[in-house]
Amino acid sequence: MSLSIRGYAAHSPTAPLAPYQFERRDPRPDDVVIDILYCGVCHSDLHQARNEWGGTKYPLVPGHEIIGRVASVGTDVTAFKPGDMVGVGCMVDSCRHCEACAQGLEQYCKEFPTFTYNSVDRHDQRPNYGGYSERILVSDKFVLRIPDGLDPKSAAPLLCAGITTWSPLRHWKIGKGQKVAVIGLGGLGHMGLKFAKAMGADVTLFTRTPGKEQEARRLGADHVVLSTDSKQMEAVAGHFDFILDTVPHPHDLGPYLATLKLNGVHVLVGLVEPIEPPVHSGALIFGRRSISGSLIGGIEETQEMLDFCAKHGISADVEMINMQDINDAYARMLKSDVRYRFVIDLASLKNET
Amino acid sequence: MSLSIRGYAAHSPTAPLAPYQFERRDPRPDDVVIDILYCGVCHSDLHQARNEWGGTKYPLVPGHEIIGRVASVGTDVTAFKPGDMVGVGCMVDSCRHCEACAQGLEQYCKEFPTFTYNSVDRHDQRPNYGGYSERILVSDKFVLRIPDGLDPKSAAPLLCAGITTWSPLRHWKIGKGQKVAVIGLGGLGHMGLKFAKAMGADVTLFTRTPGKEQEARRLGADHVVLSTDSKQMEAVAGHFDFILDTVPHPHDLGPYLATLKLNGVHVLVGLVEPIEPPVHSGALIFGRRSISGSLIGGIEETQEMLDFCAKHGISADVEMINMQDINDAYARMLKSDVRYRFVIDLASLKNET
Repeated sequence: MSLSIRGYAAHSPTAPLAPYQFERRDPRPDDVVIDILYCGVCHSDLHQARNEWGGTKYPLVPGHEIIGRVASVGTDVTAFKPGDMVGVGCMVDSCRHCEACAQGLEQYCKEFPTFTYNSVDRHDQRPNYGGYSERILVSDKFVLRIPDGLDPKSAAPLLCAGITTWSPLRHWKIGKGQKVAVIGLGGLGHMGLKFAKAMGADVTLFTRTPGKEQEARRLGADHVVLSTDSKQMEAVAGHFDFILDTVPHPHDLGPYLATLKLNGVHVLVGLVEPIEPPVHSGALIFGRRSISGSLIGGIEETQEMLDFCAKHGISADVEMINMQDINDAYARMLKSDVRYRFVIDLASLKNET
Repeated sequence: MSLSIRGYAAHSPTAPLAPYQFERRDPRPDDVVIDILYCGVCHSDLHQARNEWGGTKYPLVPGHEIIGRVASVGTDVTAFKPGDMVGVGCMVDSCRHCEACAQGLEQYCKEFPTFTYNSVDRHDQRPNYGGYSERILVSDKFVLRIPDGLDPKSAAPLLCAGITTWSPLRHWKIGKGQKVAVIGLGGLGHMGLKFAKAMGADVTLFTRTPGKEQEARRLGADHVVLSTDSKQMEAVAGHFDFILDTVPHPHDLGPYLATLKLNGVHVLVGLVEPIEPPVHSGALIFGRRSISGSLIGGIEETQEMLDFCAKHGISADVEMINMQDINDAYARMLKSDVRYRFVIDLASLKNET
């Protein structure tokens, strides 16, 4: 039996998202069948709905910050049972045998991971549809446990915005005694502040917008630097060990690189475009500084992050919406008018006739 | 007594280098007075003689790959005595108390190191003149021992071309089991091949010029990849742990970044210009790759390199010239017509009337 599913889809780069009925595959022995409760709204949902990165396959059902309850499990599944609260992030499969997969870094799979939507299944080649829908089937190895004590609504954005900031902070071993700066205060940035603070770092927010001090401090910042103020920027020259750059549009890295110490690292997690204006190599050579990038995170480290969040009382700041509000939410997201992540309550889908 | 010195200087960005008589300071208690025997010719000598980086102070006496014999030492000097074979590289002083200096990384001195020429002395504010001259005075902490067994002529380029490639290979812990690529086969590149090979890495030369295979293998390359051949480039996609990029002019990093493994690092040591065309951030994000830079090396690691070279029989491949040939040498250097570093025999100065 195939599963008939209600969801919302984009049918072209310019059409608003609209109700869409589609089928999911018959469950396989390793599948976890999940009734979706909540799904976060990521900026990359919008990019792909509008084909801004190219290659979007329509109809597109976005959504990769998925929280739900297990409805049933395949015969080979032992880690989950019906009723469990679970999550699904940006990936639903990978090759499972390359060097990266062997290290639990499926996001860097040499044969490319299977993303949760805008992709095709590795086995039956059928299109994958995301979490703007009432139900999803995912291979057990790519399903996360949502620990007791994590609020399921505000846990949804952890599956993308959370792990995207957690993974580089962990990889570059951020902890006590280190000075960390976060650029941008959106879905990613607000998680970056929370994590860096919880890891023990001295945390600074770089922002172009005055008046964010109080809010930034509430989220974990010890300091706020207005990046448009050259005096404030000079005051932090050579100051930081690590910069987490969450800005999703082109911006000049030069002024930020100058705030890094010897051996400092500037990590891009928001930008998926050419680095313009070009960086002067002297900013790297004089100080042995690096520019790097980081992509979401592996399944094992995502689970580690969720457990850490439960233990430390960390979750995303969310604004709940109904499925029917998604096009308005996209419009507001483009104006950065969200604190700090929209989360769709999928119960709203059931009210549709 | 001030010391009257014969040398060669540039007097303007366009004039050829010409004989120049000048004075050095009276020796200080920590000075080592060195009779210069040999001086390597670095591309940055030419850049500064022609004011291509801006800020050149004329007259300019270039030269920072200096080998000579100690003529005398100041009263506080204990590490050197007259007759010792010594070297001087790119730096003659630094603040000596910042975090970088405390780590022996004077090249990253927070107050900026004092470069060997085109700089002013930290104490008397007089201009510093480089190694295209018969004698130099340098504070003992910035003087290197040239071990027995190192040929002084071919040791000269180790002081800049050598340490510039040695330092990043050491910092990024290159050794057995790692795949290293060197871009460019000039003064820096040929040292990069020798060092990477001696450190135990599997070494590849990237070159745009066919026919360099035999020469590259002689210098330490295990493989040669023609970077203009897209098939050869595809064959090494995701292959390298580390790329040492010695190219001194703007070039597209994109094709090289694609040859890096997960966590691979591309280090710029030759380019001092904007990175153009711009790098696409995806090349960093998908693979957690980094672009970094590295500047010469500290005094302690320079000594370590010289000792390593003596132990492993490594030195630069040089072409000896007379001081009077310097303008022809610059013209040939611009055509990459040198294997692999010109070294001036300063004895030629004494023949001038």
